[in-house]
Amino acid sequence: MKTRFLFMMILSFLSMTSTAQQALWGAPNLVSPEIHDNNTVTFRLLAPQANEVKLSGDWMPSEGWVPGSVAMEKAGDDAWTYTTEVLPSELYSYFFLVDGLRVPDPNNVHRIRDVATVSDVFLIGGGKAELYRVNDVPHGTVARRWYDSPGNEMTRRMTIYTPPGYENSNENYPVLYLLHGMGGDEEAWIALGRSAQILDNLIAQGKAKPMIVIMTNGNVFQQAAPGDSPKGFYKPTMQLPNTMDGKMEATFRDVIEFVENNYRVKAEKENRAIAGLSMGGFHSLHISRYYPNTFAYVGLFSPAILPDEKVKSEVYENFDETLKTQMDNGLNLYWIGIGKTDFLYNFVEDYRKKLDEMEFQYEYHETEGGHTWANWRDYLTEFVPRLF
Amino acid sequence: MKTRFLFMMILSFLSMTSTAQQALWGAPNLVSPEIHDNNTVTFRLLAPQANEVKLSGDWMPSEGWVPGSVAMEKAGDDAWTYTTEVLPSELYSYFFLVDGLRVPDPNNVHRIRDVATVSDVFLIGGGKAELYRVNDVPHGTVARRWYDSPGNEMTRRMTIYTPPGYENSNENYPVLYLLHGMGGDEEAWIALGRSAQILDNLIAQGKAKPMIVIMTNGNVFQQAAPGDSPKGFYKPTMQLPNTMDGKMEATFRDVIEFVENNYRVKAEKENRAIAGLSMGGFHSLHISRYYPNTFAYVGLFSPAILPDEKVKSEVYENFDETLKTQMDNGLNLYWIGIGKTDFLYNFVEDYRKKLDEMEFQYEYHETEGGHTWANWRDYLTEFVPRLF
Repeated sequence: MKTRFLFMMILSFLSMTSTAQQALWGAPNLVSPEIHDNNTVTFRLLAPQANEVKLSGDWMPSEGWVPGSVAMEKAGDDAWTYTTEVLPSELYSYFFLVDGLRVPDPNNVHRIRDVATVSDVFLIGGGKAELYRVNDVPHGTVARRWYDSPGNEMTRRMTIYTPPGYENSNENYPVLYLLHGMGGDEEAWIALGRSAQILDNLIAQGKAKPMIVIMTNGNVFQQAAPGDSPKGFYKPTMQLPNTMDGKMEATFRDVIEFVENNYRVKAEKENRAIAGLSMGGFHSLHISRYYPNTFAYVGLFSPAILPDEKVKSEVYENFDETLKTQMDNGLNLYWIGIGKTDFLYNFVEDYRKKLDEMEFQYEYHETEGGHTWANWRDYLTEFVPRLF
Repeated sequence: MKTRFLFMMILSFLSMTSTAQQALWGAPNLVSPEIHDNNTVTFRLLAPQANEVKLSGDWMPSEGWVPGSVAMEKAGDDAWTYTTEVLPSELYSYFFLVDGLRVPDPNNVHRIRDVATVSDVFLIGGGKAELYRVNDVPHGTVARRWYDSPGNEMTRRMTIYTPPGYENSNENYPVLYLLHGMGGDEEAWIALGRSAQILDNLIAQGKAKPMIVIMTNGNVFQQAAPGDSPKGFYKPTMQLPNTMDGKMEATFRDVIEFVENNYRVKAEKENRAIAGLSMGGFHSLHISRYYPNTFAYVGLFSPAILPDEKVKSEVYENFDETLKTQMDNGLNLYWIGIGKTDFLYNFVEDYRKKLDEMEFQYEYHETEGGHTWANWRDYLTEFVPRLF
């Protein structure tokens, strides 16, 4: 073969690309975010024509629903920069505001979508967020798989975590059904919740039993996450039909049947858990009550306990009676977690009063913070070691 | 249970969020991109303080490596807008340039990373891109799974497409190994290449046989894509060690062994195919030659046929001899595709001359265009129906 010394050419190709990128994108070789050894973080953005650049990060106190932000500074033609205080261990998200326009960090490709918002992310280790890292431990498999939902008259997609070793054993495994909140979908827990990393790490540390985790799409109006269904690429919204009207709960049997017919599971109550955040907490509450004696473990993470008397569904009928039956049938764990500043706090408090009056046994975890993924990752980390 | 009429509160919560978003992100209810019935597309961006806003899309002619762009216009306080000519059916990517700063479309959450660049995408149907859609057909399963690579002394991740019905049959399936280019990883073909959609659709149309598609990470220096390995979140680069020095090819046996030990495959030459783009074409050329009599189908998509005599590896030794052996052993298909303006065109031409001199049978597909994902999706669409 006629050989050629082409690495020069490749390098020149790469350098042309890089120059083009430099000209176009304005931020060629900046390091941003730069995480320093002391867990302060420096952000950098080259935006020479901007009058004002701010940084908004989810560690900053928000004003109501408006995320906090700080001004970035620049000297001469240099990049706009900002260095944080020492940040506690967490998975953080942020964006820039360039003359009022929300702009991602061009030097950070790690972005996660939350409903219709895409944010850059970074991770501060040394504490709880070590569980959110991909560490050098055995890894489970994450699959996106379609299943038939006769109750919804459609095929739908779910995200499935099978633990390390699942494929190479004949064992049966317990199952955790893990439900997202309003505007979320079957991608939410895996992306924002770092569920695969938390499970991998807790299992590797011997703190959690190997288990299958089923992350469904609770918007029964949808087949799959926006962009992953025949509806094509569209902008996600918080408000969708049929999210809290009983249909999701009534058709959840399709999920359980699919899982139990298609995976090596321990198909009995003692080996089924269900948990969810916000709307998913509402779903978990109702599913665990509506399907009698099916789940031994229930986790309500900042649950949106918001029934509406105007909504007519057999799922929500005879609430007190079926809750009593659920209690009488016995549960290994009924776990409720909520942050002190969560806008749903009072409704959870009312629900706890109800449980107390019934002498329904539950564990209650009140934490700092509000209706945030930081809390939901914490709750998952607390809940999972208690299962099975 | 004490019921409450809380939908008002939820709506108010949503509306607060929405107002906050409006204040912060500047583009609350714009539709962008808006794909019109005649396949023109309107882009909109609210950036009231900007002096100049451009749109850059991959359908625009580039100048060298600098993507083309057009000025957007605004009237008064309205959004900056631009409407394209009629666009042919394709999956397109684009971004805005706001006073020189690259900015994604805040109204489009559908973004795909290509090496270190994240772009918004949209799809124009009515032609070949119908194959890139999630259509209402049976869907295969896509799994990210870790495997042991003794040759690289690490566990590594691959992306695996199993065709519809795989899990519910006892059949064995043929396997296509599908390799990415420089700077890519095990996410490239599934995200940019729309491989799962192309396979789902071609299989549903009866144009392709149900097959397993294995998308490996060809950067044997890496365990997994940036962000998905213990190296954490870092900025991807084109240039990585050990990409074209023989190590990838020499350790590819680990991939084949894992696949054949862990999936129901037809483990013989007639049911193995290998194809790749650019660097992955180079890998496919060498792997199919280096592993004697292993693959009956070979696809070289814009292959980077760039051996360097300075690189010493047994993989590249006795090239002519082993290529002759590969020919003599027999192949069902040796397929080469390249675009007329590809910067690698001349090197592929040289390689074809060599094949011609040897009377090595191959199929050659010369297309318009250059070194682009649009071409590689085309080549996959052409190649897959020819397999097995």
